[in-house]
Amino acid sequence: LSPPGVLPLCHRPPAWGRASRQPPSLLLSLCRAFSNNKILVELDEGKGVATMKFKSPPVNSLSLDFLTEFCISLEKLENDRACRGVIFTSAVPKIFSSGLDITEMCGKSMEHYAEFWRAVQEMWLRLYSSNMVTVAAVNGSSPAGGCLVALSCDYRIMVENPKFSIGLNEAQLGIVAPFWFKDTFVNTVGHRVAERSLQLGSLHPAPEAHRLGLVDELVPEEKLQEKAVAVMDRWLALPDHARQLTKSMMRKAVVDRLVAHREEDVQNFITFIAKESIQKSLCMYMEMLKKKKG
Amino acid sequence: LSPPGVLPLCHRPPAWGRASRQPPSLLLSLCRAFSNNKILVELDEGKGVATMKFKSPPVNSLSLDFLTEFCISLEKLENDRACRGVIFTSAVPKIFSSGLDITEMCGKSMEHYAEFWRAVQEMWLRLYSSNMVTVAAVNGSSPAGGCLVALSCDYRIMVENPKFSIGLNEAQLGIVAPFWFKDTFVNTVGHRVAERSLQLGSLHPAPEAHRLGLVDELVPEEKLQEKAVAVMDRWLALPDHARQLTKSMMRKAVVDRLVAHREEDVQNFITFIAKESIQKSLCMYMEMLKKKKG
Amino acid sequence: LSPPGVLPLCHRPPAWGRASRQPPSLLLSLCRAFSNNKILVELDEGKGVATMKFKSPPVNSLSLDFLTEFCISLEKLENDRACRGVIFTSAVPKIFSSGLDITEMCGKSMEHYAEFWRAVQEMWLRLYSSNMVTVAAVNGSSPAGGCLVALSCDYRIMVENPKFSIGLNEAQLGIVAPFWFKDTFVNTVGHRVAERSLQLGSLHPAPEAHRLGLVDELVPEEKLQEKAVAVMDRWLALPDHARQLTKSMMRKAVVDRLVAHREEDVQNFITFIAKESIQKSLCMYMEMLKKKKG
Repeated sequence: LSPPGVLPLCHRPPAWGRASRQPPSLLLSLCRAFSNNKILVELDEGKGVATMKFKSPPVNSLSLDFLTEFCISLEKLENDRACRGVIFTSAVPKIFSSGLDITEMCGKSMEHYAEFWRAVQEMWLRLYSSNMVTVAAVNGSSPAGGCLVALSCDYRIMVENPKFSIGLNEAQLGIVAPFWFKDTFVNTVGHRVAERSLQLGSLHPAPEAHRLGLVDELVPEEKLQEKAVAVMDRWLALPDHARQLTKSMMRKAVVDRLVAHREEDVQNFITFIAKESIQKSLCMYMEMLKKKKG
Repeated sequence: LSPPGVLPLCHRPPAWGRASRQPPSLLLSLCRAFSNNKILVELDEGKGVATMKFKSPPVNSLSLDFLTEFCISLEKLENDRACRGVIFTSAVPKIFSSGLDITEMCGKSMEHYAEFWRAVQEMWLRLYSSNMVTVAAVNGSSPAGGCLVALSCDYRIMVENPKFSIGLNEAQLGIVAPFWFKDTFVNTVGHRVAERSLQLGSLHPAPEAHRLGLVDELVPEEKLQEKAVAVMDRWLALPDHARQLTKSMMRKAVVDRLVAHREEDVQNFITFIAKESIQKSLCMYMEMLKKKKG
Repeated sequence: LSPPGVLPLCHRPPAWGRASRQPPSLLLSLCRAFSNNKILVELDEGKGVATMKFKSPPVNSLSLDFLTEFCISLEKLENDRACRGVIFTSAVPKIFSSGLDITEMCGKSMEHYAEFWRAVQEMWLRLYSSNMVTVAAVNGSSPAGGCLVALSCDYRIMVENPKFSIGLNEAQLGIVAPFWFKDTFVNTVGHRVAERSLQLGSLHPAPEAHRLGLVDELVPEEKLQEKAVAVMDRWLALPDHARQLTKSMMRKAVVDRLVAHREEDVQNFITFIAKESIQKSLCMYMEMLKKKKG
């Protein structure tokens, strides 16, 4: 059922149905072939905790390459019995992740848009239903898809710097967050906060994000790593099996909804993104970003 | 499918399916014929913002005439390209709207009850799924149906006077809020606050309403208009299309539920309201209100 | 449809479908036969309010006997026109209820597990959909099934002592709260708080429980009874019929879900609980409790 040529190694984890069909050794070698070193993975085997550090400057945007590497890295850890939890953080100053890479959505073929969108879905399905404990250590701004990564973890710690903001700001760009971004958001902050924030395309400064429940905790930047480890320890104190079944019970309805409508969601995306008006506004936005940098 | 003889001009807006079937000019002329001047509509074409002022003393009750005028006015604005947002407020001191007009539910024919209920449904369907930005500037008390009008907007600002209260107090009158009142309430304040407030038929003073999330903001009375305009500006800064699709995504499930069960809901209402015990308690309540005034 | 030999007198109350099939007099006499005096029921006929005091030392655990007596007592009150509300509290110091009795889940037959689980379901179905006003006066700790009893009431008052804690801590024991425990929890505290608390198996000290919305109010121990009566008075001021229909509207979806999957849920439970690994960890937990006491 998986789309030909797209992320052939990123099968759905057991939590939502299918087991990996590739032997780990083949996976590993292919993984290395895929790796573009956009993500640094460090595994502390003693603790059973991995850290995935996003290091794709300038802004850790979620390109097709980044997403592919993310999925493969996550699957490797998921299948590694030595690993029970993952901390996600950024190696790029001031930014956690800027979200979906707009260059993947601009002036490309329909096939490319479809491939890209399947990779975004895959990333979310794997992360939101991971059997591991997932902690986001948000050490910079995290708009749109970057926010989705954080929302899909079990716990979110953010640096208390009010210059760092987080939110699903798609509406600001003239586009609409997909229903499963919305479902993940509603599950975290409730219907009303989500309705208002999504319609306004709000980027919430860290203190406001904390007040709204978008992140669970704020810490000074120098305490972030330490706090993430402490939180992880607390979650790992629970028996894995009971914790995993509980997580699955809480998230299954929303995961199942995308699984049931996955191809439809791809078609919606490519139809929408290929519209002349959307292409025009995305290109303008990209030009603006380039000028800002220049 | 629309009930014969009832609100023939209030078709469902595009957001939930059908486009208007009457040419605007005919609509306009018929609208004038229907108008009873219970609502003052002012459109600032420069800003693209209309204000709908309820001026049906003594308490802006939602009579069949009021609801008909409300729907026609809203449809006119919805179809007017010069209008992107509406502010709802009251021209009657101390009251926003007292809710459904009890005289429409007392000692009338089954046909009348059905016509009235369809008008209430129509009002909510149009308002809750309006493509325009809708801001409630609540400058007085707002029980029952008046609260529903506020809850159906995108944003609620209330005068901070603790003498003004708001809530779905139907249970106090021995009646039950319909499921779509409840759904709208739950979408705003969450399940637990709604459960408690609906069972107790609570009218929340403004500060409590704000604490519970029933209104978004409190302001002194003299700042209300200014604040409503500022909020409107902020919401209108977003591209209409993205904002409208996002709003529809958030509200569709609840709107669809009434659309799917509309006639059933009418039958439930007329069966319930025509019961001798309910008629008796509504008439007693009406007598009590008359004595209070006298 | 009710399982043979199990709680033959605990029929579903009218709120979710079936009326009692036994004449009250027979019920009463059988009830006395069943009664193990684990619960003290006092009815103030003047006020129309009963108090159910749990007096099953050392920890008011929900054994099959306790649950049977609970259901019969509740049905008696439900069918008693003189009774409109029930206050639940504990006669055992420092504990409200410790939850499901682990001895019922350890080293017993499959038939016993099934009988026990049907009694747990029956207790929740009756309590969560009771037509009476139900107030939990939580005067001690209340883990797991004890927390469920409190969550299933209309209102929760807890003694403000931070040594008393409450929560669905099943995950700590290596087991998973059933979906209807989870649904009841989500309806009370929202999705995110429930997700985090269930995964961590958290027991929240009273002040934290109040902050999270798990309980509605905190009072000093000496004020608990007085406050429970005052809250009851406030809820009883509403017309019963409107309040009952409103309650049913709020809770029906979650009640219907268990009713529709009741036997499936029994099978899930007995399959899970009979697993060697689960039996082993429950027995270890029980040994630990015994040593603590000794």
